[in-house]
Amino acid sequence: MAFAHRHLLGMENLSSEDIVAILDTAEGFAEVSKRDVKKVPTLRGKTVVNCFFEASTRTRISFEIAEKRLSADTVNFSASGSSVSKGETLLDTVRNIQAMSPDVLVIRHHAAGSAEFVAKRVAAAVVNAGDGRHEHPTQALLDLFTMRQHKGRIEGLTVAILGDIANSRVARSDIHALTKLGAAVRVCGPPTMLPPYVERLGVDATSNLREAVRGADVVMALRIQKERLGRGSFPSEREYARFFGLSNAVLEEAAADAIVMHPGPMNRGVEICSDVADGPRSVILQQAENGVAVRMAVVYLLGGGQGE
Amino acid sequence: MAFAHRHLLGMENLSSEDIVAILDTAEGFAEVSKRDVKKVPTLRGKTVVNCFFEASTRTRISFEIAEKRLSADTVNFSASGSSVSKGETLLDTVRNIQAMSPDVLVIRHHAAGSAEFVAKRVAAAVVNAGDGRHEHPTQALLDLFTMRQHKGRIEGLTVAILGDIANSRVARSDIHALTKLGAAVRVCGPPTMLPPYVERLGVDATSNLREAVRGADVVMALRIQKERLGRGSFPSEREYARFFGLSNAVLEEAAADAIVMHPGPMNRGVEICSDVADGPRSVILQQAENGVAVRMAVVYLLGGGQGE
Amino acid sequence: MAFAHRHLLGMENLSSEDIVAILDTAEGFAEVSKRDVKKVPTLRGKTVVNCFFEASTRTRISFEIAEKRLSADTVNFSASGSSVSKGETLLDTVRNIQAMSPDVLVIRHHAAGSAEFVAKRVAAAVVNAGDGRHEHPTQALLDLFTMRQHKGRIEGLTVAILGDIANSRVARSDIHALTKLGAAVRVCGPPTMLPPYVERLGVDATSNLREAVRGADVVMALRIQKERLGRGSFPSEREYARFFGLSNAVLEEAAADAIVMHPGPMNRGVEICSDVADGPRSVILQQAENGVAVRMAVVYLLGGGQGE
Repeated sequence: MAFAHRHLLGMENLSSEDIVAILDTAEGFAEVSKRDVKKVPTLRGKTVVNCFFEASTRTRISFEIAEKRLSADTVNFSASGSSVSKGETLLDTVRNIQAMSPDVLVIRHHAAGSAEFVAKRVAAAVVNAGDGRHEHPTQALLDLFTMRQHKGRIEGLTVAILGDIANSRVARSDIHALTKLGAAVRVCGPPTMLPPYVERLGVDATSNLREAVRGADVVMALRIQKERLGRGSFPSEREYARFFGLSNAVLEEAAADAIVMHPGPMNRGVEICSDVADGPRSVILQQAENGVAVRMAVVYLLGGGQGE
Repeated sequence: MAFAHRHLLGMENLSSEDIVAILDTAEGFAEVSKRDVKKVPTLRGKTVVNCFFEASTRTRISFEIAEKRLSADTVNFSASGSSVSKGETLLDTVRNIQAMSPDVLVIRHHAAGSAEFVAKRVAAAVVNAGDGRHEHPTQALLDLFTMRQHKGRIEGLTVAILGDIANSRVARSDIHALTKLGAAVRVCGPPTMLPPYVERLGVDATSNLREAVRGADVVMALRIQKERLGRGSFPSEREYARFFGLSNAVLEEAAADAIVMHPGPMNRGVEICSDVADGPRSVILQQAENGVAVRMAVVYLLGGGQGE
Repeated sequence: MAFAHRHLLGMENLSSEDIVAILDTAEGFAEVSKRDVKKVPTLRGKTVVNCFFEASTRTRISFEIAEKRLSADTVNFSASGSSVSKGETLLDTVRNIQAMSPDVLVIRHHAAGSAEFVAKRVAAAVVNAGDGRHEHPTQALLDLFTMRQHKGRIEGLTVAILGDIANSRVARSDIHALTKLGAAVRVCGPPTMLPPYVERLGVDATSNLREAVRGADVVMALRIQKERLGRGSFPSEREYARFFGLSNAVLEEAAADAIVMHPGPMNRGVEICSDVADGPRSVILQQAENGVAVRMAVVYLLGGGQGE
């Protein structure tokens, strides 16, 4: 599988062919995690450094498991307990790690654009594992993988994304990926959580939840940053849950075979009701499962695996 | 070696045959750590996730070394720096990890019953690495392994356990395991640190230290949570050391060939004097050594190793 | 390659032959990190525990990458989130880890002498990764490796070390190593940052920056602990930068082919200007690169690799 990019920085700069190539590669890797021996020797002797300047459980573990199932050597570091707290610049930290000849750097950082900034300055392949409010491309890839798994296609799907669209890197990456592949995207949230001119991204926007969900094939609730509630952008959790929370009643508006997604971690009872999260339409845990396959594909394609 | 359980949640629900089977398996693994190449390929391609929601050094390192000597892929996460701090429920965190197809989950959590709660809801084998005040089964197994190593048997031994019995998961697990295997157990601590109706567990209870130790084959001092001293349960460290600390003078009451144990980390000069901890009867470091062998056995038996 | 020591505690107790032996071994390993498969099987089945009682990014990652490229099993622990916070003594923590049969312990600790203290009490090989203000021997080794790489020799070089000499373990280790190998060392810093009787270490000392740099083959700026500025030892960052910061103007005093070094992490604009750090004479990133090779050599020589 040839792949035309050195880095995975976002969905915005990938073509639909690129995206499909990654998804197809991931199909092959999904099977590895179902084996008795969950490991392929593909990236033996490659070094992957997971640089998490922001806290994470699921994403870091998902990458680390993916890397180990590819037989890469993995090294983690997180901002706490590191020289980042000694005031070193991001660039100096990363250049220093680059000097140790890693093959892939997985980077999560609170600043939008940080992954691209790093990618331009290192020889290693860079995977953006979330940069501020900008992009979270492996999340979009696992979302698309999961949609394709359940719906057989992306093109022609109607996808409703609910929540704090303005501040969500998941929403941005999903919007880029879905529109490239021909899905119709609707975003929905309180007016304070919709970015200005969001229609320019090729999506429909509304603050009417039922209207957004009506007839949708995929309904995706985003995590609400609770620290944003009770301040400027929304009065309270209860208020949010009442007007924008995804309940079974709202879900009835969707297509009969609609699936429900959430990038996690969930605030149950806020942006999603437990009976929806745990209900028959929920594919939330398959998203987590597919995350490993998608990240194996990305690390494999960028880590030099294609030459073997 | 066949093993009848999918999980290791506590000693309470194991039979004496189960316990002996684990100890016998551990005998075989003890030798691996003495080799020049300390590694067997048994669990190659298996994924073990060590989920430590509570701080730990020795237990986490012991498990991780055990897993690596079995050639498993290991992934750690600790509560700090994780999405647990974002308010996700334990179940959602664990289900998410389960979705990534681990073979074994090692779990330490502050809530009693958490390991069993998780075990009922995941496909992976669950090893309880300490759940609140409830159980710490691998500690009991390494304690029994160490006793058997020195005394050649468990049956018929008299074991004195000293300290905060009411709040100790180590004491609970040891009491279950020892009584099943036919040892006589005495527990001793200030009345505030003895659980009500402790005799129902099949042990003798006293607040007289010398009486508890008299003629014992094994004397085990438990770690005192210093934060409990100086409050309700006991006046002060010095007071505790004077009346319940294990000194050489007290130890003279024990059998001539008695061994001294402590699960660590020790508060030297509080529950145990340094001359006892470092004395000729102390087997405290052998406990740590045997911990690796016992954990290799447990992870091997639960991790699918038995089929190979 | 035979190596006469069981531990690497500091440069002070190594002979010049020892130092050259490590550097020569590192030459061989430098090539491994340039391969497509960056891994040799030398230490397969060996266990290395990285005990970082003090925060670190670069040193811990450098060791971990080195160990993994040697195929050792590596386990990390850091003081935070460990039983160290439960008040256990360093010795008890380390003895406990020793009981788990590691082959090598890499130790960073804030107390001078801690590595030697541990080394006397464990069977594993101990590598000092920085003990308080005392020594940081692998840093000195990578510094010498880098000097030899660029200058072809150590003997006869003039090396200027600039900064807080009194509090720097890097300076101490470099001074020991360089003087043993026949380099002339000059140290320079404000009088409050020069240790009393520093000349007894066989170096020239001055508080005149230009004088220190004049004709030097190697100019090494040390990291300033910012928390020391603005207190007793120096008035302010700006004041420090003005009188002791390494700028291009100052660097003109050095030999025409002088190289510039810094152990990192850098305070750009304080002890070193960005145009020097990023300039053509800077070999700072090669230092980081060579750190992996040097640490591979050290862990290999002490970890039992020489017998294979």
